[in-house]
Amino acid sequence: MAGGVVLVQGASRGLGLHFCKHILTARKEASVIATCRSPEAASALQALQRLYPQNLTVLRLDATREAEIREAAEVVAKEHGRLDLLINCGAMLHPSGRGETSLQEVSAEGLSITLATNTIGPLVMAKYFAPLLWKGIGAFGHQFADQAKQHRAILVNLTAKVGSIGDNALGGWYSYRMSKAALNMATKNLSIELGRGKTKVVCVSLHPGTVNTDLSKPYHRNVPKDKLFTPEYSVNCLMNIIENLDMGKTGKFFAWDGSALPW
Amino acid sequence: MAGGVVLVQGASRGLGLHFCKHILTARKEASVIATCRSPEAASALQALQRLYPQNLTVLRLDATREAEIREAAEVVAKEHGRLDLLINCGAMLHPSGRGETSLQEVSAEGLSITLATNTIGPLVMAKYFAPLLWKGIGAFGHQFADQAKQHRAILVNLTAKVGSIGDNALGGWYSYRMSKAALNMATKNLSIELGRGKTKVVCVSLHPGTVNTDLSKPYHRNVPKDKLFTPEYSVNCLMNIIENLDMGKTGKFFAWDGSALPW
Repeated sequence: MAGGVVLVQGASRGLGLHFCKHILTARKEASVIATCRSPEAASALQALQRLYPQNLTVLRLDATREAEIREAAEVVAKEHGRLDLLINCGAMLHPSGRGETSLQEVSAEGLSITLATNTIGPLVMAKYFAPLLWKGIGAFGHQFADQAKQHRAILVNLTAKVGSIGDNALGGWYSYRMSKAALNMATKNLSIELGRGKTKVVCVSLHPGTVNTDLSKPYHRNVPKDKLFTPEYSVNCLMNIIENLDMGKTGKFFAWDGSALPW
Repeated sequence: MAGGVVLVQGASRGLGLHFCKHILTARKEASVIATCRSPEAASALQALQRLYPQNLTVLRLDATREAEIREAAEVVAKEHGRLDLLINCGAMLHPSGRGETSLQEVSAEGLSITLATNTIGPLVMAKYFAPLLWKGIGAFGHQFADQAKQHRAILVNLTAKVGSIGDNALGGWYSYRMSKAALNMATKNLSIELGRGKTKVVCVSLHPGTVNTDLSKPYHRNVPKDKLFTPEYSVNCLMNIIENLDMGKTGKFFAWDGSALPW
């Protein structure tokens, strides 16, 4: 399909920015809404906006402020009336920029800020954009022939393999791991609630691999070169997964290579 | 064993109160420290204190305040010098008293308060009490003959089956489910970090069943009578599990009947 209305939350840089680029390049008629906290400071996103003035809208949105999310949803409702794909990308490792390596580095404040950004924000996004997802035309993903099994839209929460409790063998990164485990629960809950009615939304958690972004920067030297993906490569893999999603895959947690991850 | 130093966080009522009662009854020489936000309003706990003036200490502690946790740990360090068992019981369903039945009932504030109480509090408890757990004498649980596999203490996070992502078939209760999934991740992380050194601590998540407490009160009429446990029954089952814990079981999630639950 050529078009589709997409919102990428946390699009100033990293994976969010590259989701916008990828979709604008691949779908000439797509409308992409890119949100970030400080559009004036998001130079790469501004440059992209100049390249795609008709197709890309940049919206100011701090996902830790419920009122801003509600207002953004009102703007999108007015201008587009629907959403076919919502990708929650905004995340931090920890306010300090580094994950906790031991329990003694844990703080209530660090946990609270990380959970607000990585967990609460994405779910409150889902709350205000669900009515627009219900109005989607199913422009993304694979559609079943059986109309009863077709979806209107797709909601993606970017989580991470380190957010898998079952896969956790190393420990550490308390705030980040816990925030992503909680977001995985949100994905599962959303898949149930938004999979029930006539207007269905596919909801998944995706793990992008270890990607060369600011978030993972302090750890790059520990990652074998062939395991450190460019954002372009990761987004390409993730969009392949998204384009093959259907209601049979809702409520699951997939890695960049399509493999299912344990909770 | 007759003694042991135990701290029960969230002991004013419900399961926390009954853990104190059970241990004081079963172990004549135990020292139990019961914490709650408002000791002056905790009449049942006060009554218990009058019955066991030598064995029960009541400490004021709001687990959402990191400074109060640090101070409580200093008091316990001074008076007991160690801890053999820490049980994190404090929890809320949601600030409204009822779990969200739909996404539209979700709020950033409700999520934030629930996560502070159910998730951040227990982990910050672990942070300040870990040094005392390392000094435990292994008074609870089963000890391996091999000294290298013995534990000094046990840390229990009370979570809930509805905090299992894999088991979630009904949805709803967003804040509560997410807070308990995140706490399960904390348990897993703690089991790794506190299982590494020479002074090992067994860390588990336990599901108490559906128990007749204030937390679950709004839902009692939906629960078949034989599935609604008294706090005494649930605590009895959970203490049986605790008394059989060893390092072979650390990092796991058990139900009241001893069965392992999926993450």
